[in-house]
Amino acid sequence: MTNQSDMTNYLQTFVEGMISSGVEQAVISPGSRSTPLALLLHRQEQIKTFIEVDERSAAFFALGLSKASSKPVVLLCTSGTAAANYYPAICEAYASHMPLIVLTTDRPHELRQVGAPQAMDQFHLFQGHVKEFIEMAIPEGTKTMLDYAYWQGMRATDTACQVPKGPIHLNFPLREPLLPNLDRSLIAEKTTAILAGKKQLSKEQIINCVDAWQGKKGILVVGGNHTSEEAEVFIKLAETLNWPIISDPLANITTCGKNSPLIMSCADLFIQEVEMIQYPEVVVRFGMLPISKNTMFWLQSLEDKTTMYFVDETGEWQDQLKQTQVAIQVEEQAFVQTIIDKVEIKTVDSWSNQWITWQEVTEQQLNELSEMKTLNETSASLLVHKKMADNGQLFVSNSNAIRFLDRFSTAESNHYQLFGNRGINGIDGIISTALGMCAINPERQNVLLIGDLAMYHDMNGLLLAKRYNLPLTIVLLNNNGGGIFSFLSQRQLAAEDFEPIFGTPIDLDFSLVAQLYDANYVKAESLEQLAVLLETTQKQPAFQIIEVVGDRQENVQLYEKVMMELKEKLREKQ
Amino acid sequence: MTNQSDMTNYLQTFVEGMISSGVEQAVISPGSRSTPLALLLHRQEQIKTFIEVDERSAAFFALGLSKASSKPVVLLCTSGTAAANYYPAICEAYASHMPLIVLTTDRPHELRQVGAPQAMDQFHLFQGHVKEFIEMAIPEGTKTMLDYAYWQGMRATDTACQVPKGPIHLNFPLREPLLPNLDRSLIAEKTTAILAGKKQLSKEQIINCVDAWQGKKGILVVGGNHTSEEAEVFIKLAETLNWPIISDPLANITTCGKNSPLIMSCADLFIQEVEMIQYPEVVVRFGMLPISKNTMFWLQSLEDKTTMYFVDETGEWQDQLKQTQVAIQVEEQAFVQTIIDKVEIKTVDSWSNQWITWQEVTEQQLNELSEMKTLNETSASLLVHKKMADNGQLFVSNSNAIRFLDRFSTAESNHYQLFGNRGINGIDGIISTALGMCAINPERQNVLLIGDLAMYHDMNGLLLAKRYNLPLTIVLLNNNGGGIFSFLSQRQLAAEDFEPIFGTPIDLDFSLVAQLYDANYVKAESLEQLAVLLETTQKQPAFQIIEVVGDRQENVQLYEKVMMELKEKLREKQ
Repeated sequence: MTNQSDMTNYLQTFVEGMISSGVEQAVISPGSRSTPLALLLHRQEQIKTFIEVDERSAAFFALGLSKASSKPVVLLCTSGTAAANYYPAICEAYASHMPLIVLTTDRPHELRQVGAPQAMDQFHLFQGHVKEFIEMAIPEGTKTMLDYAYWQGMRATDTACQVPKGPIHLNFPLREPLLPNLDRSLIAEKTTAILAGKKQLSKEQIINCVDAWQGKKGILVVGGNHTSEEAEVFIKLAETLNWPIISDPLANITTCGKNSPLIMSCADLFIQEVEMIQYPEVVVRFGMLPISKNTMFWLQSLEDKTTMYFVDETGEWQDQLKQTQVAIQVEEQAFVQTIIDKVEIKTVDSWSNQWITWQEVTEQQLNELSEMKTLNETSASLLVHKKMADNGQLFVSNSNAIRFLDRFSTAESNHYQLFGNRGINGIDGIISTALGMCAINPERQNVLLIGDLAMYHDMNGLLLAKRYNLPLTIVLLNNNGGGIFSFLSQRQLAAEDFEPIFGTPIDLDFSLVAQLYDANYVKAESLEQLAVLLETTQKQPAFQIIEVVGDRQENVQLYEKVMMELKEKLREKQ
Repeated sequence: MTNQSDMTNYLQTFVEGMISSGVEQAVISPGSRSTPLALLLHRQEQIKTFIEVDERSAAFFALGLSKASSKPVVLLCTSGTAAANYYPAICEAYASHMPLIVLTTDRPHELRQVGAPQAMDQFHLFQGHVKEFIEMAIPEGTKTMLDYAYWQGMRATDTACQVPKGPIHLNFPLREPLLPNLDRSLIAEKTTAILAGKKQLSKEQIINCVDAWQGKKGILVVGGNHTSEEAEVFIKLAETLNWPIISDPLANITTCGKNSPLIMSCADLFIQEVEMIQYPEVVVRFGMLPISKNTMFWLQSLEDKTTMYFVDETGEWQDQLKQTQVAIQVEEQAFVQTIIDKVEIKTVDSWSNQWITWQEVTEQQLNELSEMKTLNETSASLLVHKKMADNGQLFVSNSNAIRFLDRFSTAESNHYQLFGNRGINGIDGIISTALGMCAINPERQNVLLIGDLAMYHDMNGLLLAKRYNLPLTIVLLNNNGGGIFSFLSQRQLAAEDFEPIFGTPIDLDFSLVAQLYDANYVKAESLEQLAVLLETTQKQPAFQIIEVVGDRQENVQLYEKVMMELKEKLREKQ
């Protein structure tokens, strides 16, 4: 039998270690084995706790909290399959470098491999999708073991926060009785200061980059996972070099409020259609490839004509093209700022002007398109982008939703922050992640743009909005099924193969879902109505579902029409 | 680029291998990378396919199909987090020995570790919770590789079906283009016959058991995971030896329609309360410990007074008590039948009679209890047990629901099959597993007994009922929160700690849930009304939710009243 007071001291000291390394939030799922840690976290003044019964939603919610706060977030659950429900969010967190501190509780050694209830092997439960797995010692109250508990809490949290950031899993074997002693002071006092260095290049290496880039015909290609503030620095770099900049929507280049002509927000539409007379001498990529497949194919086609630079602090070599000639492993922002300061020669306008023209022609063509003036999934997505308030937060789902934004949205004067789950691009956990984002800044405008299948996949997450009064506006693009497949090769299939396996209509009445979770519900009937609804949201955030009824075929037809007309217009300009 | 025809032949041959080893059903979640396998499974006449977008529900549904059909079931999904959603059901399948054939599809080697979208490390994704992980070769069309594909399909499925049964994970790297050639014949013809031996004891070993057991004061203790047919054989063994039999609800002893006085269905209530004058000389356990904690404590208290036999074909030593003196690793049913045939000496009635009296006193006390005549969670659970049709199927959720049945239900004349997820006892995936059970025998009465938190956790599973017209009757015990904790040590906590972390009310209107998924809905207002509803279900199965509004405190009060009165009555009898 574990001494109640020793267990309490041990676990409380562990919590204090996590606090020392920056933990401020925890998401707890109810259970019995996790009782002492749940109570200690809940009672801890320095930690804000959230409760969610469905561990899958809980973990994605923690991911959203971490994304919007840039802080490590704790997850806690009981033993058994509860923890396995965390797995999708953990895989996403590992791929997209988010620091989750995953605490699972477990039977002690004497109750393992003996058929004890709610017990399973939790060692390395999340396989290679966490940075570390740590089996904690059975709680003891000696100074040695309290030092150890503090150290693990502090060190594991810091490890999660080091580049490349990512989740850490700690497994706690706990003996009964499980009730802690709640009389102990729950104010964390011990702290360990961490002065964390960042990767920097030498002066000589920087000068070599500047010499290799300035005055050359170049392109900046910026991947996702950047804040609006970081995006502004990239745009400044583009302007300093006079290079066009192609980016992922989640790079926040088109949402940071800087409307530079060098921003090639419609590259996906035109890049494979134009006749390239001049090729880039240099491509400088930052992080993962942007979502645009056409950009990827175009980069691939450059082959040896161009010198490829790949800037990536993580050193993970996530370069799908395998074309990197110079890999730069450095903290991006300071590096980019230094380059800006050193560049003296702009590239000639003839290089950037052709790109600016292509972007302008595309923007103009989109503006003239009659379909953009009536309500459909594409126009609705664009309108959401345009109606985001300054400092607002938009979460965009995977599959079609992010592609609508990527292809059609242009830089506007509003500056807001766009989020998404682009580590592994799943359609799972989207609502919960968006609610995590919303919980960090609930006073701002918070919007989620999502399709019906992703909405269905994570409906349980809506309970968090109800429980914590999270004023998220959900713009639901409902085409009753898997709209993305109508854009892929699967569309060649006969209907009897396509509909049941890829179309997968779910026929859900989402007004009932809204009612179930106490959300307001409106079905948008026109683009004008949607505009008014979104404008209201800017000032009066509320938990609501705005449904836009779409059509899978219509989306494809609109895209094909755009491409056909655009080809024509681009040909005229050349 | 993979040759389309080679890829088709390779994957089709793999599917034929699985069919040879008994695969008849597959559950597919939509995705792009999985396209060729999805289409081949869907087109295969010998395989019935189901589609479910939420992979977590899909996997539990497959588990239910496997439970009710005693057949291996295929799961298929695309790459990335999709597969991670399978994890909870896989952990449960591994712990409860269900043969799932889990097929994940993956990027080919050249697109791994390079940041390709929807790609993550899928090697050993389910860690130690599958019997085998197999990385398949890239599809090729040579005879060698077709033989290999067939072999893996046949062999992996057979491996999943060998004792101890369990899930197998095969990961398929697939290159584009992903559309298969659907002109190929999709009738599986090649087969491999498997003559599978079973573990048997020698004649001498059997005689030693018979000699050690017959005429001795003994107890049979039967764990879960047995069919009604198997249960009858255990009861026959009890009657042959004249021993009382204590069992888990999922042993189906109390549901198999044999009402023997030796069945100690209320052991959990009386076993710690009676004064034992005679101790058992022999305890023979089959499989896992029953759910009853009081039975466990009682067995533990026997220590050296009793010789403990532990019959377990798996050889996994899942004996939490660690008291086994003789471990018998043998196929249960044939072994039990042989013992029955050889036993010649019955144990004296004075041994069994005291047990029969205790059971009778308890049954009588329960019958007299006024609370059993009005509607509450306990009485509703008992009524479900009594109103199950012959050959019906009842799925019981974990946490409180199965405990109500365990404590209070007695053997009746109806014989039906009771199912549950008692590998790791999670409250996740219950609805989907029950729907899998229902899909195997939809013409029978199919009932699910579930609490509100488990219902919420797997609400997405209800889409399967809607899509496939599965006539499941859900009896929802709604006490608005985690009712189990009111029975555990956590109830000592102050309300401000208890309610948010353990009580966790979710305040959902389940009539809306019924409406969302096209289920009928009734709120039961009386025990009589519930009886009528359940009787109708016997003849006219329908997809419906019958809500029983419960109260967490009331459940505890009822239990405490039973225990208090029972103590008194048992004392009078001694």
